[in-house]
Parts: sequence; C-alpha cells; structure tokens
Amino acid sequence: MSQFDYDLFVIGGGSGGVRSARVAASLGKKVAIAEEYRFGGTCVIRGCVPKKLFVYASQFHEHFEDATGYGWTVGETRFDWPSLIAAKDREIARLEGLYRKGLDNAGVEILETRAELTGPHSVRLVKSGKQVTAERIVVAVGGAANPHASLPGHELCISSNEAFHLEQLPRSILIAGGGYIAVEFANIFHGLGVDTTLIYRGAEILSRFDHDMRRGLHEAMEAKGIRILCHDHIQKVTKSAAGNLDVDTINNGRLVVEQVMLALGRDPNTAGLGLEAAGVETNDRGAIVVDAYSRTNVPSIFALGDVTDRVQLTPVAIHEAMCFIETQYRNNPTSPDHDLIATAVFSQPEIGTVGLSEEAAAKKFEEIEVYRAQFRPMKATLSGRAEKMIMKLIVNAADRKVVGAHILGHDAGEMAQLLGITLKAGCTKDDFDRTMAVHPTAAEELVTMYAPSYRVRNGERI
Amino acid sequence: MSQFDYDLFVIGGGSGGVRSARVAASLGKKVAIAEEYRFGGTCVIRGCVPKKLFVYASQFHEHFEDATGYGWTVGETRFDWPSLIAAKDREIARLEGLYRKGLDNAGVEILETRAELTGPHSVRLVKSGKQVTAERIVVAVGGAANPHASLPGHELCISSNEAFHLEQLPRSILIAGGGYIAVEFANIFHGLGVDTTLIYRGAEILSRFDHDMRRGLHEAMEAKGIRILCHDHIQKVTKSAAGNLDVDTINNGRLVVEQVMLALGRDPNTAGLGLEAAGVETNDRGAIVVDAYSRTNVPSIFALGDVTDRVQLTPVAIHEAMCFIETQYRNNPTSPDHDLIATAVFSQPEIGTVGLSEEAAAKKFEEIEVYRAQFRPMKATLSGRAEKMIMKLIVNAADRKVVGAHILGHDAGEMAQLLGITLKAGCTKDDFDRTMAVHPTAAEELVTMYAPSYRVRNGERI
Repeated sequence: MSQFDYDLFVIGGGSGGVRSARVAASLGKKVAIAEEYRFGGTCVIRGCVPKKLFVYASQFHEHFEDATGYGWTVGETRFDWPSLIAAKDREIARLEGLYRKGLDNAGVEILETRAELTGPHSVRLVKSGKQVTAERIVVAVGGAANPHASLPGHELCISSNEAFHLEQLPRSILIAGGGYIAVEFANIFHGLGVDTTLIYRGAEILSRFDHDMRRGLHEAMEAKGIRILCHDHIQKVTKSAAGNLDVDTINNGRLVVEQVMLALGRDPNTAGLGLEAAGVETNDRGAIVVDAYSRTNVPSIFALGDVTDRVQLTPVAIHEAMCFIETQYRNNPTSPDHDLIATAVFSQPEIGTVGLSEEAAAKKFEEIEVYRAQFRPMKATLSGRAEKMIMKLIVNAADRKVVGAHILGHDAGEMAQLLGITLKAGCTKDDFDRTMAVHPTAAEELVTMYAPSYRVRNGERI
Repeated sequence: MSQFDYDLFVIGGGSGGVRSARVAASLGKKVAIAEEYRFGGTCVIRGCVPKKLFVYASQFHEHFEDATGYGWTVGETRFDWPSLIAAKDREIARLEGLYRKGLDNAGVEILETRAELTGPHSVRLVKSGKQVTAERIVVAVGGAANPHASLPGHELCISSNEAFHLEQLPRSILIAGGGYIAVEFANIFHGLGVDTTLIYRGAEILSRFDHDMRRGLHEAMEAKGIRILCHDHIQKVTKSAAGNLDVDTINNGRLVVEQVMLALGRDPNTAGLGLEAAGVETNDRGAIVVDAYSRTNVPSIFALGDVTDRVQLTPVAIHEAMCFIETQYRNNPTSPDHDLIATAVFSQPEIGTVGLSEEAAAKKFEEIEVYRAQFRPMKATLSGRAEKMIMKLIVNAADRKVVGAHILGHDAGEMAQLLGITLKAGCTKDDFDRTMAVHPTAAEELVTMYAPSYRVRNGERI
C-alpha cells in the first residue's frame, strides 16, 4: 500500500487538470482534484465557450442585413441581453455537469475547495483545513486577467470575467488592449449594438500576427464602425456625476463611456498557492517553471496549462496533460510539442493562422515566396456587404515548404485547423498545387495560387 | 505564316473553353472562341454560381429561427422570389462580363455564334455560314440536363435550367433524382418555403458517397420537413384541370404538385456538333473519347470538360485546359490528374468529401480503421436546432494513410478543400494526431480522434 493518501492530487479543475485527473483515474490511480469555483476552467466558464456563444449572438444582425440582398424583408429586430446571458449560463452549467460526470465516472474524488501546497507531497484543503498527501501533484490553476492595479480607477473597470455577467448591455464601451481578447470583445459588443472603442498602446492590434491580418482586421473593424485608437492608453478612469465613466487618455483627450473593459494580458494564478512552502520555482512573471515534461524543480510536483505561461490555449493544456500521463503513468516519456500550433481569433472577420508570419519567415529564411489573395466572398456579392477575405501562404523558397498560412474572413478558424495538419506534415506548395479546387468555396483560393505575389530575399521584398 | 486562320479555335465558352482560349492567346497564339449563348458555361450561367447564391438565400430562415435562442426577437419575415432572381441575374451578368473582358484582354477573338466541326481543321460558324480553319480545335461544349424524353409528360417538367428562371416560386415541388443536383435543389426550395418532395429510384440518395453521409443527409432533410421517397420513380405527369401537375408514381400513388423538376443526370452536348463530319469518336453516352492528354482520335481536335464525361466539375475542366496548354503550347506534356478530387454537395447540411468511402476503402484494402464522430455543433446548443455533424476518417491500417475524409455539416465544403491537400500529399493519421486542436471549432474533431471507432478487415467490421 502507498504511503500517500493519493497517487495523484490535481489542483485546478480546468482543461489540463480535469484531463490529467480523469485519465490517471481511468488507469487505476487513486486521484483527487480540488477546485474552488467551478469545473471547466477558463475555457468553459469564462473563456472560449461563452466567448464563442457571444460571437454567434453578435453575428445575427449581419445575417438580418444580408438577407435583404437575397430577397428577404425582415421585420423589426430586437436584442435582449439578459436572455443571452441566461441561455449562455444554462449551457455553461450543462458543460460543467459533463466535466463533473466525466471525473465521477472515472472514479476521481472531487473536492470543492481551494487547495494550497504545503510541501513536495502535501496539500492543505482550505475549506476543511485538512492536510492530504500525494505521490504526485499537478498544479493546473490557470491564469486570470491582469487587473492593471497601477491604473487610477482600475476598480471601476471590468475584465472579460465580468463581461460575461453584466446585468445590462452598456450603450458604450471602451476596451483597452490589442490582443485577441480585446478584439474579440470589441466585435461582440459592436455586433450587439454597443458603441465600441478600442484603445491600444502599440502601433497595430494583434502584435506578432502577420501584418496583413493585423491591418486587414483593423480596417474591417473600422469599416463596421468600431473606433480604434492605437498609440494610446488610458491614464485615469473616474466616475462622472451622470453615472458614466470619464476616461482620460494620453493622446485622445477625455472619452466618456458607460463601461471600460481592460484586456491587458493574463497572469498565472500563483499567488497564495503555497509554492514557496513546497519550494516550487516561479519566473519573474509569477509562472511556474517546468522542464520539457511539465515537471517543476520539485520532482513530485508538475504544472500544466496557463499557470506555466507556455502557450495559453485550451488544446495545449490538454496536450500537456496527455503528455504528463504518457510520461508518468504509461512509461512513455513524451514531451509536449509546442511547434506549429494553429490558432483562431474569433474576431469579425475571423483570423485563422498557423506557422510563421511573413515578417518572421523573412527573418528566418534566406528567401520566401509570398502568395496573397484578396477577394470579396461570394455571399457578399448579393448582400452588398463591403468585406474582403485575405489569404496568404508563406513558402520557404529553398525547399518549397509552406511555413505560414494566414486567413482573414469567414470560417478562418475551421480552415486554420486543417491547414495546421498540412504544415505539421511538412507539405510543400507543390502539394497545394496538385490539389483540385472545390468550387465554389473560399478555400479554393489556397490551391489556385499559381505564382507568388512577391518574394522576400534577405529581408528585402523583390 | 500559318496555313490556318487560327492557331486555336475553341468551341464553347464555359470554364474549360475560356481558360484554354485565354491562356493560349496570352502565349501569343491566334485564338478564336465561339459561344452560341452566354460566356461562363454551366458553372456561371446555370450551375455552381447561381446555385450557391440560391443556397445562401435559402439559409436565412434558419438564421432567423436560430437568432431567438441567442436573445433576438425577429419581426415578420417575407421572401420575394423575383427579387432574388433579379439580384442573381445581375451578378451572373457581371461575371459574364468578367469572362468576356478576360478573353478580350488576352486578345481572343470572340464569336457569338454556334460553331460546328466540318473537318479535322475546319469549323462552320452557324450564324454567318462562314468556314474557318485552325491548326488545333478544342471542343468544350459541356453537357445539359437529361430531358428524360421517354417519360410521358416530361415536357410539363422543368430541369435545373428553368429552376433558375421561374417566374414565381411554386407552392409545392417534386424533384426526381438522387444526385447532388436533386438534393441541393430540394434543400433550396424547402428553405425558401416550398413544400418539397424528392423521389429517387435507388435505395438511398447520393450513390457512391460514404453511407454515413448518405444516411445522415437523408435523415437531416427529413427532419427539416423534406419528404424523400426512395425505391420509387415517376410513371407519368399530366396537367390537372386546377392547373397543378398530377404525378403518377410506381409506389406512392398520385402526387399533386405545382412543379416537377427532373434531375436525372446530364448528357454531353454532342448532338449536331459535326463530330461525324470531322471523324471524332464518341462513346455510347455520346461523350467525346479522349486520350490521357485530352486529344480525340483526330490528332488536331481536343476535348475538355463535361463533353468528355470524365469528371463533371468546373475545376476539373479548368485543370484539363491548363494541362492542354502545358502539353500543346509549353512543350511540357501534362496529363490531367483525376485522382483524389475533393468535392462538396451544397445540401443543407453540406457534405464535403475526398477520397474513398468506407465501402470502397473496405474493398480496396485488407484492413481499414474508421474514425467517426457525431456531435451537435456549438451554435446549435443555444439555437436549439436539432442538428448533428458527422465526421469520418478512413485510414489504411497497413500504412496509416488517410484514404478518405467525409464531413456532413456546416462548412463541410471549405473543410473538404483543405483535407484534399492532406490526402493528395499522402498524410497519415499520425500527421493528424500530431496537430494541435483549434478550439472551439468543428474541425478540431478531425485531429482529436484518438482511437478507431471500428475496423473493417477483409470486408468484415470488427
């Protein structure tokens, strides 16, 4: 019999924690998982899932408009925010139930409490004060929106957390940030009828994305009526007598809005977790430092997902959990593969991307070929909507491999998923060329790009 | 100077004809193209393009319904068929203009006349009666809906041609056929509010597609309210006193509908084309017989696209045209590649498919692995729509290659295009497994199918 209460103790009921607990238990291990709030983690409770449901909700007004060009007359439409919130909450509760059921069915002991490390093999359950021990401990407590505590008036602002539970839809909102959360919410609020402004310190939204995606989305959002203020940031937020928020900016004077949302990055949830007591190292951002197998400097303690600040994505946390299981419980040492991760930004239009941006590829390779198409999607011909799709393939001229693929437009996320397979498999541009088009689709552009739009050699466009 | 009036004479202004004429002219050849009706061919004038515009039009009523679950109230909606027809006609005219402009810009002589072969190097322009000669002749006259002349009352029925120009939307329609044209139009008419019945002689719609796609679409269409009568066909159509059509069927008695559409296959347009005069061979279906380089038995005469009855798809005709150009004018003999063509059926739900069906793969390979997922798309959780997506991967167990991929659901066509690249490149299931998921998408199911749903060995499911 083991000297520990559990073979595995998991702290945190998000994607990485639930997956590692469930699979370890299904392999016969004695497993407990502690979660202080709700199961499902950021993804299910206040991230990917409710976000995408909001995206769907915010797209209907365009459907109503588009219908006109196709012969439809649509009567008066009205949107009720509390109805959406209630429907979303029901769905999230259903999903949380599925997560619990999966843990239950696998025989994982569910502990509804905050848990803190007290040593290499021990955890304190905060609710009861009880100490338990485990042979291995997985820390998968995720991250949280940076509250930007140094901003005067930050306490008057919301983060994405609160955005999912606002009692009423504001008439106007200012969103601070230029990352994917900021641009997704800007499009959601705008689509639901909110007067929306985005303010971002940098020169262009979505840093590190391909410049055509960044510029293309920026232009599309402005064309819809979203105000974007780059090279600027908030200095102070104060409550006005009328109940609005007065927002003082560096370069755009005072803005008066009903709500301010800060989307200025996310921090690992490591405060007060007992990492010091257990001797677990963190980096200067507060993230837990792990090796190639998600092991911390304390051999019995592992960390997965956002708390390690490697790549903050649900599928990555799940992948890290599966690698942990392979390595620790299946005698098959497997290191998470963080290379060539396809991702989507559920902005409107959407961005789907995998591999290197043109800029990054131009730095990495002596010569690249850039294939670029910009076109009006077929649906827009009759709807009359002024929208453009942009598709780009970046090819390493030396070996013809496609090293980057970028799409702005409808279904870009779905396309990025499948383009991800082609890049992961090392497909060449010739593989794309050999593929027959499927007509009429948007994706057929990707297999009918006969000649490079331009080349970049030694960093110079030629 | 050449002994001929033209280097190249093209008969038929569709996808294959226009492409070969335009590219040959851009290479400096003296080229003429004859078209008796409008430029753009079946695809632009009465096929892919107007069909997809109709599909868009027919989807809005579901958007209106779905909106309710997302907090929207939608006032009374109304659809006006003549408005859609007018908008579609304007778009088709615009596209036709682009085709003409492309020909003009390349220096192709455009002849608005029917043209008939009179010999290996000669063509008669029917409008003027003039004879012209050419070193090479391309026949790319396409195909047309089979009128089913043996059916009593067939003259009371329409084909897809007329469906694009009906003066008013019928209240009810019976569509005969089980191919993609029949199912696409059944969904279009149903979506626009027409009481729709499909009648098909075979056991299941969409023969040769994967059985899960066939059955899944059948069930989804019936769930929407489309009546599907398999194992049956029309015996006779007569006009009733009330102005309806009385349709006598073999197994379902008399059906009374306002319109009957026949979608019973398409025939090559070879009648009266002068093929006998020129000595060009046709097969028993009337299709022009060509070799691997699209050359007929008459060395100066070539045939491309639907008139050859190889694969009746726009991108294939274009590909055959490009191969003809490579072979004849660029000294680079290139044979069209008809293997692993991805296609889409723009039914509702859509089908996207590439490679072998489960049935075909089970016959071809000793052992296959079948990965199958069936799930409710995320959007349907709040809309409450009872719809399921089905995704299937068929893997040859011997070498792990993915030999078939089949999707039923939204954006299946876009996905099939990109899956087409992976199959063409010979990607294995391991390449799929190595790819990180993009969350939340539907396509992520395709990279998270960890274990086969079942295997088929020597034709037996195990």
